[in-house]
Amino acid sequence: MIIERIKNATVEPKISLVGAGPGDPDLLTLKGVKALQTADVVLYDALVNEALLNHAPKQAIKVYVGKRSGDESFSQELVNKLMIDYALNYGHVVRLKSGDPFVFARGYEEIDVAESYSIPTEIIPGISSALGVPGLQKIPMVYSALSESFWVVTGTNAKGEVSPDLYVAAKSNATIVVLMGIEKIKEIASIFKAEGKENLPVAVIENGSSANEHVVVGIVETIEELIIEKHIQSPALLVFGQVVSLHPQFNAIKDFYAILAQEE
Amino acid sequence: MIIERIKNATVEPKISLVGAGPGDPDLLTLKGVKALQTADVVLYDALVNEALLNHAPKQAIKVYVGKRSGDESFSQELVNKLMIDYALNYGHVVRLKSGDPFVFARGYEEIDVAESYSIPTEIIPGISSALGVPGLQKIPMVYSALSESFWVVTGTNAKGEVSPDLYVAAKSNATIVVLMGIEKIKEIASIFKAEGKENLPVAVIENGSSANEHVVVGIVETIEELIIEKHIQSPALLVFGQVVSLHPQFNAIKDFYAILAQEE
Repeated sequence: MIIERIKNATVEPKISLVGAGPGDPDLLTLKGVKALQTADVVLYDALVNEALLNHAPKQAIKVYVGKRSGDESFSQELVNKLMIDYALNYGHVVRLKSGDPFVFARGYEEIDVAESYSIPTEIIPGISSALGVPGLQKIPMVYSALSESFWVVTGTNAKGEVSPDLYVAAKSNATIVVLMGIEKIKEIASIFKAEGKENLPVAVIENGSSANEHVVVGIVETIEELIIEKHIQSPALLVFGQVVSLHPQFNAIKDFYAILAQEE
Repeated sequence: MIIERIKNATVEPKISLVGAGPGDPDLLTLKGVKALQTADVVLYDALVNEALLNHAPKQAIKVYVGKRSGDESFSQELVNKLMIDYALNYGHVVRLKSGDPFVFARGYEEIDVAESYSIPTEIIPGISSALGVPGLQKIPMVYSALSESFWVVTGTNAKGEVSPDLYVAAKSNATIVVLMGIEKIKEIASIFKAEGKENLPVAVIENGSSANEHVVVGIVETIEELIIEKHIQSPALLVFGQVVSLHPQFNAIKDFYAILAQEE
């Protein structure tokens, strides 16, 4: 019992929020590797590649706290509670989060809770799927005359709705990346149609950077149909913008539209 | 001479565009490390931390091709030419670029040139300063009621002007990150003022993620003055949005405005 008490007295609580990147375990940063190497506990999310757990010491406690859409087994409150309890009792907790901790990942909520307990925190950025996944498909966020900015929006906000920001985004010339929007594609496409952008190129990327990645390229007018036809499911992201026309799959569509134009 | 010819005959040209991240060498990905380890040639930009070159083999050729604003010593045409020549003659060229290769880094231009020579290319995403640098300062891109989206815009486009997209961005509720905008702060602030956003929180981060990082937090009304007073220079980025109010430095300003409000 005395050993137990001494052990607890020497615990130095710390919480590192580490971005695991979009899926490929090699897209973790060196800083992320170093954090894992000193972890006493790793709390990891649903979309995190479990191969990353191998960077943590063998004796470290690894706890899955994932929630996929619809599954409420790990509420944010429970994750917060586990994170604090483990930090106070074991020391260095690594919260390993898919993508980047501050891009729709409730990272700040967790920092906020940790700081309310005076536990030191650290942010280690990760490759956000929003940029990295299109990038791996050689779709740039900005390019010359095609786009000078990019806008990342959620398709499912805290209320479970498409973000109102998307209505403004659809009016702009920015490259628009919609995360968590695949199940609302009908509504999202209609927002762009309302702006007269039926022919705007769109890419849908399912399981980006993973072995089972699928890419579908189309235009606003046809994208819902393509998603159904190709059985694309979440996790998937949408990229709207002229930069999508640079993707090799877009050539076929361009030719198709050229033929259609001739026939008319 | 025969050896020379055999050597050239076995060269397998390949070009990897690798994102080096914002400055801290530990923010390189494992995939970036692996690319460097097999590099025959590394062409690296001005803002890339030279410590990263240690991941490349000792015998690899390392060439600085950086251009800072105003310095035209390495035009994009020259960089393209060097990249192709080295790939054809030496094999694996790593183009090591600050941040992410597809976020205002002319990455696609280089991919395009390489593919016109039928040289295989690969993109290895990096931590973009736009997201990673505010993140390290614990400023999230999105947070609960404060922001549901973020928009990354250039302060200096190909014409040397503030991107017209910023005029639309300033009307939105998105968190807005402006890269390469520090020298145009007067014009940029006036765009937000025209939308009645004098009190919108703003952060300026110089040399993000580096030892000589400087952070200034203010509001649209005062930010130009603060930048001059604190001698902030490029490279620096601007973050406009309510999420900036979460930064500890903002508390002092909040108190200051509370006092002002009482006095009136």
